[in-house]
Amino acid sequence: MVSRLPLYLRALKQLLTDGLDVASSQSLGRRLHMTPAQIRKDLGYFGRFGKQGRGYDIPYLINELEQILGLNQEWPVALVGVGRLGRAILGYPGFNPEGFSIRAAFDSSPSVVGQNLGGIEVQSIKNMEDILRNEGIRIAVVAVPAAQTQAVIDQLVNAGVQAILNYSPTSPQAPREVKVRNVDPVMALQSMTYFLRSVPVPPR
Amino acid sequence: MVSRLPLYLRALKQLLTDGLDVASSQSLGRRLHMTPAQIRKDLGYFGRFGKQGRGYDIPYLINELEQILGLNQEWPVALVGVGRLGRAILGYPGFNPEGFSIRAAFDSSPSVVGQNLGGIEVQSIKNMEDILRNEGIRIAVVAVPAAQTQAVIDQLVNAGVQAILNYSPTSPQAPREVKVRNVDPVMALQSMTYFLRSVPVPPR
Repeated sequence: MVSRLPLYLRALKQLLTDGLDVASSQSLGRRLHMTPAQIRKDLGYFGRFGKQGRGYDIPYLINELEQILGLNQEWPVALVGVGRLGRAILGYPGFNPEGFSIRAAFDSSPSVVGQNLGGIEVQSIKNMEDILRNEGIRIAVVAVPAAQTQAVIDQLVNAGVQAILNYSPTSPQAPREVKVRNVDPVMALQSMTYFLRSVPVPPR
Repeated sequence: MVSRLPLYLRALKQLLTDGLDVASSQSLGRRLHMTPAQIRKDLGYFGRFGKQGRGYDIPYLINELEQILGLNQEWPVALVGVGRLGRAILGYPGFNPEGFSIRAAFDSSPSVVGQNLGGIEVQSIKNMEDILRNEGIRIAVVAVPAAQTQAVIDQLVNAGVQAILNYSPTSPQAPREVKVRNVDPVMALQSMTYFLRSVPVPPR
């Protein structure tokens, strides 16, 4: 249920950009391919945001959802793994506007450590735990090869990191109190080819 | 349920790499933080793969899952949007080993069209529909700015594309028979900060 709040937040921001001030659960539902009842139930779990028959005040609801999600503050983030994928993540323009700021980057390769990438000096993974503790970083993005992922995640957990975004094609283990989300484009593709198999090829 | 099969497939491949030949629903469950009953139920929906008390033969189950998911063939893929993110996607090493091969790339910017990137010549988005139809491409990866996403997806649907992996920070609309998966690292982070808010900062 919490996992759908970012989706609602994004849809509300789009509606605001489109010039709207008020949204109904119907209009949100149409946009998100969900039933209005589901949306009302999800939001109702966190508070009373709408007035019967009047819909939701968009700027108010955006602000409330941002508070619930902890987005009314900036979150420093560490990146582990500065290979091709890690560099793309460093350059990804979507994090900063949403309050996620990559403050430290780590790698194990001597040829990468010491490089300055967009204002961030890559540091040795050997010093990672101390640096994370000192800087109070609680969120990490992991972009290391699959074989190294579990060891890196163990180190992050030891250093007090509580939320991990994992780009490696693995299902790493972490204590239950540490949140891990896997960003895996290949798995997303694989979950769609199942459907392609069973639908006809479109006429050309 | 289908959406969990790629997860099982990945875990089974890891176990095989680790030198194992047989997996129980218990060992899979421990690895994936799921109950054995859930795994047996999911797999049981698609066939009878295990023998009571003996567990699953890993190479056999991998092969079966790949057939179910349509992964025993190569899938040509189109990339739309060759900016910073699109270039990172073109360079992403994870697609090819799993049978997804980027065969065409499109952009609207005259400064990008005509460039050769890793053996693929970027083509004008104006010609996209014809090219996709001629090449029989049914899967597309979208990495265009948010404001252009819906128009691009409409074009893809017109061209017969049936599966779309969307990297834009939007919730685009598509007909129900077209599968869309959103890969959005920011939303993944946002769904974790909720939990960080409610747990104590670890001692330093």
